[in-house]
Amino acid sequence: MTIALPSPRLVGFHKDGQRRYGLVNGDGVVDLSARFGARWPTLSRVLADGALSRLVDEAAGLPADLALDGLSFDLPVTDADKYICVGVNFPDRNEEYKDGQAAPSNPSLFVRFSSSFTGHTAPLIRPPESHQLDYEGEIVIVIGKPGRRIAERDALSHIAGLSLANEGTLRDWVRHAKFNVTQGKNFDRSGSLGPWFVPFTSEAQIADIALETRVNGELRQSDRTSRMIFSFRKIIAYISTFATLLPGDVILTGTPTGAGARFDPPIWLKPGDVIEVSADGLGTLTNPVADEVI
Amino acid sequence: MTIALPSPRLVGFHKDGQRRYGLVNGDGVVDLSARFGARWPTLSRVLADGALSRLVDEAAGLPADLALDGLSFDLPVTDADKYICVGVNFPDRNEEYKDGQAAPSNPSLFVRFSSSFTGHTAPLIRPPESHQLDYEGEIVIVIGKPGRRIAERDALSHIAGLSLANEGTLRDWVRHAKFNVTQGKNFDRSGSLGPWFVPFTSEAQIADIALETRVNGELRQSDRTSRMIFSFRKIIAYISTFATLLPGDVILTGTPTGAGARFDPPIWLKPGDVIEVSADGLGTLTNPVADEVI
Repeated sequence: MTIALPSPRLVGFHKDGQRRYGLVNGDGVVDLSARFGARWPTLSRVLADGALSRLVDEAAGLPADLALDGLSFDLPVTDADKYICVGVNFPDRNEEYKDGQAAPSNPSLFVRFSSSFTGHTAPLIRPPESHQLDYEGEIVIVIGKPGRRIAERDALSHIAGLSLANEGTLRDWVRHAKFNVTQGKNFDRSGSLGPWFVPFTSEAQIADIALETRVNGELRQSDRTSRMIFSFRKIIAYISTFATLLPGDVILTGTPTGAGARFDPPIWLKPGDVIEVSADGLGTLTNPVADEVI
Repeated sequence: MTIALPSPRLVGFHKDGQRRYGLVNGDGVVDLSARFGARWPTLSRVLADGALSRLVDEAAGLPADLALDGLSFDLPVTDADKYICVGVNFPDRNEEYKDGQAAPSNPSLFVRFSSSFTGHTAPLIRPPESHQLDYEGEIVIVIGKPGRRIAERDALSHIAGLSLANEGTLRDWVRHAKFNVTQGKNFDRSGSLGPWFVPFTSEAQIADIALETRVNGELRQSDRTSRMIFSFRKIIAYISTFATLLPGDVILTGTPTGAGARFDPPIWLKPGDVIEVSADGLGTLTNPVADEVI
């Protein structure tokens, strides 16, 4: 896969103990929080104001304030009202569960807290409570326009941007209780979002792109969005049937087959491993794994 | 059940299109947003600053700005980072599922969005997509002090306040997909929180109190917190094992047996029904049901 770097792209980053956002400009980052933070404290607020294009245009000619190399990446969207995850959305994923159930007619949905994610290049944290940390590479959509009961034909107009996720999971904790995977999906910093926010411009950006996950360079997951069981349009239409989608809402759209749990015996992530999630036109989200220091 | 009104109690309310918070003072409400909103825009921010006691003391002597009667109630906490729900937490609830599974050793957890709740006296909304709207009366704890891996012995010191919930559910939508109940628990305004926030002072407030739900005056759910499968201490300790709890976080602690789904045939809520959730020392959360107007 050739990964062409998207342009423009926006990043979240930490500086002086603050969460900030900026525009990548060559090898550097224009600090948008320094220039526009009083009006738009976060990228979500930019989206809510419909000001993304204007901001990108204004910032494109500005000199970089920081080097991209060595940046302390934050989540591209830090204050979403909702981080919604779609489960079981690629062929063969349903069969991986080996429970004899037919593929469902509606997407399985669960929720992650923002604290469950870290940024690009920061380590995914393996907690002492479980050594079954696993990866799930996913494509992320960020909502730009609010809506309820959005029709599939209108759904893509509600997307403001794209990103990538490693939807890191503690496998034994997703089966801790009757129903629901909440606890295994929400260990602090067990997953990641990034590396950046790429403005959405047309369906061609996502209609049939490759999504790949590598562990220490070895290809583990590889599929194409054209094979998703529930399309981007369907996901937006379905979720907005019950809940109003808001600017900044983040939707993780499901992972291909090939997570570590699938191997026999399973191959869990361990400290020192490096996971790369890549997609055409979106770049590569890279995270090492580290044991939690308590 | 004799419902003594708690004191002090704080309310969220709508006024002039804004979400505000205040202190109940006799038959009136002191508008705290008008006086302290610049410093603490929401009650969660008051909690994060550890300023609750001071604010209550300062406001207690102030004259009321609005009448309590006719107040447009909002959620007592509007901007929680997390609204976490505990499933299957009272005796006989596990058996209601009739799936032959033993009672679980860990709480089942799922997440609701703030948009899934409405305030006291506002209607629960029955959407056109489902007529299986059901009630679940619950006791709510609001976190005041952040923490991760909180020990059970320390857990209650992290509670800032208490409230009530009607954890309204669209029963057919909780089984829409493989795993997870997200969609059936998150229809906009299908549940409620309130009527108010009661500061937590001692374990006696919650250790063995009655929790009751009535539909049109008929007692449907009745149990005591001393019979909870997972105690308040256990819930806080367990959730904080994986996620850092933050001031303002809202935890719905589970419902007794007796929801409408339990009857044969099931009895779903319909427009005009009135549901009352009551608990010793916390008051009564009352909501009618209305069909959604699209």
